[in-house]
Amino acid sequence: MSELRKDVLTGRWVIISPERANRPNAFAEYEIQNDSSEDCPFCPGHEERTPPELLTLKPDPRKKEWGVRVVSNRYPALRIEGEVKSRSEGLFDKMEGIGAHEVVIETPEHDIDQAELSLKQTAGIFMAHAQRMTDLFRDKRFAYILAFKNRGAAAGATISHPHSQLIALPIVPITIERELSGAKKYFDYRGRCFFCDTVEQEREDQKRLVSLNQHFIAYTPFASRFPFEIRISPLKHRSFFWEISREETNSLAEIQRDVLRRYKLALKNPPFSSIIHTTPPNHLHPEHYHWHVEMMPKLTAQGGFEWGSGFYINPMSPEEAARYLRHLDDYMDVPKNYLLPTTGSVNHGY
Amino acid sequence: MSELRKDVLTGRWVIISPERANRPNAFAEYEIQNDSSEDCPFCPGHEERTPPELLTLKPDPRKKEWGVRVVSNRYPALRIEGEVKSRSEGLFDKMEGIGAHEVVIETPEHDIDQAELSLKQTAGIFMAHAQRMTDLFRDKRFAYILAFKNRGAAAGATISHPHSQLIALPIVPITIERELSGAKKYFDYRGRCFFCDTVEQEREDQKRLVSLNQHFIAYTPFASRFPFEIRISPLKHRSFFWEISREETNSLAEIQRDVLRRYKLALKNPPFSSIIHTTPPNHLHPEHYHWHVEMMPKLTAQGGFEWGSGFYINPMSPEEAARYLRHLDDYMDVPKNYLLPTTGSVNHGY
Repeated sequence: MSELRKDVLTGRWVIISPERANRPNAFAEYEIQNDSSEDCPFCPGHEERTPPELLTLKPDPRKKEWGVRVVSNRYPALRIEGEVKSRSEGLFDKMEGIGAHEVVIETPEHDIDQAELSLKQTAGIFMAHAQRMTDLFRDKRFAYILAFKNRGAAAGATISHPHSQLIALPIVPITIERELSGAKKYFDYRGRCFFCDTVEQEREDQKRLVSLNQHFIAYTPFASRFPFEIRISPLKHRSFFWEISREETNSLAEIQRDVLRRYKLALKNPPFSSIIHTTPPNHLHPEHYHWHVEMMPKLTAQGGFEWGSGFYINPMSPEEAARYLRHLDDYMDVPKNYLLPTTGSVNHGY
Repeated sequence: MSELRKDVLTGRWVIISPERANRPNAFAEYEIQNDSSEDCPFCPGHEERTPPELLTLKPDPRKKEWGVRVVSNRYPALRIEGEVKSRSEGLFDKMEGIGAHEVVIETPEHDIDQAELSLKQTAGIFMAHAQRMTDLFRDKRFAYILAFKNRGAAAGATISHPHSQLIALPIVPITIERELSGAKKYFDYRGRCFFCDTVEQEREDQKRLVSLNQHFIAYTPFASRFPFEIRISPLKHRSFFWEISREETNSLAEIQRDVLRRYKLALKNPPFSSIIHTTPPNHLHPEHYHWHVEMMPKLTAQGGFEWGSGFYINPMSPEEAARYLRHLDDYMDVPKNYLLPTTGSVNHGY
């Protein structure tokens, strides 16, 4: 049985989940071993190898073929049964590992590159996330849902078939808490949403702008922790990710594919993580906070230093990263797998 | 010129340091290329390849041979010249990249395994850290000094010759700020230091105890984020790391070597990071906070998910990790490079 434990000093929570050690490749040190389609539990024809479906999106409702499948994680970090009750153990606090852990199988195609998925397919993935969040939040024990994706073993993926994950939690993670509290301070002082003001500034001065479409903006954050870190944000104030409209999912799919194609051209399809930050459902002031997607390519080794200090050293300014990604405009209609030739200013070895 | 930038929402600071991209292997993706002694800038005979010495410890003061050398980092994340002045850029805050960045060359031997260094040598490394901190804090612009070590490319090291680093900062990093503020709350409530109470509890119930000697305890923290994470803490209340006595450095060297030998036996000499957390020099309440060393082996790929949420999933309980490391007592006097045979309960593939 897994357990949620609190670091008393910092307020950070950790899931202690011994079940997760049983996953294939749980400690595989940056190698995904299990990547042939034949062995893959997420490939069509192997549906019985996953727990039962929670949601299926079909391109043609009259046919058997699925486009996106959501299933429970076979090695869940948290379990759905039980009560949310915080207890002490000596000096420390813990609670039972209550929650939900789901896998979104993003496409039936085992080997497809996400930058090449159709917009319809990508929009379907976002719709699946939004639908599962809506459903999970009916359970009043859940205070937050983390929706995230790791691509590549260096970013923590253990299966190569394109997939993302949802973890429903009885507490709001500390990074979100801190952003909410920073956003509140900003709102109290200025009377406006920090994200709305940022979107306006980034759109105007363009120094960190990567891409813009009807409903979204992609930019490199001012205090980027990593080279080529990107934030995708709705242009208008939107508090809750799961309220996204069908039209907005199409627009989000479009800008995300644009970003992934730029990553592919500039960085040789890097391993990356992305994560959705949203206002929690019970938040009293949805006017303070604006949902967004954080995208972090994994280009350099980070570790204990950053975890031990909360301090980051980024060897590339976000302005330089944005300039480089923008300049790829001329290359965006090139054939698949085309890689940009090395330029003088940027180390192609990323 | 590098720059310190603040994430307005979370209060997190980032050093944007384009100079660091010029390091050898800056983006080497988990490979240290430059690891022959011949090319190594840290090996004896190559002293002219580093900036001038800031401190040298010699085993025999009458001879030329050095034991530990501290030099400025050739690719500093921060520079010593300038003024600490926070400015705004639109919505955001930044300051000039003022600080110091030093390298502690821990031994003349290029290939030696840290677990096999003599106690005298290891104590000398800690003394060098303490002396440099004392010296750097004479500069009143510095609010904190991060002393840390990355071993292995996966933990962020770019040179294999054993070395650690010191970064003097004009601000206190957010993780330390949060621990200080948590420790203050605890002190306000209980009238005692949180770390002193923790040491007592861990010593008594022994579930997470790894090692104990005259002045120090090594234990796996209750809310460990990573398998085999360890905290080394003075048994008695000690606020400022740099006030460590000579006797204590010997004891610290002994317990650290013990931990490293256990890591070596259990985990095949894993890449790891360690970091010293200390009360900052200007802190008004040194009775609140107790310096300690955090040790984090890098066994699994982590990344954006953890950075995006502040949430950790640890597949091994700290009690199991401690039990495993303790049970190595029987193997601690084995010859060098001996590796423990696989046991049933723990995946040796770490």
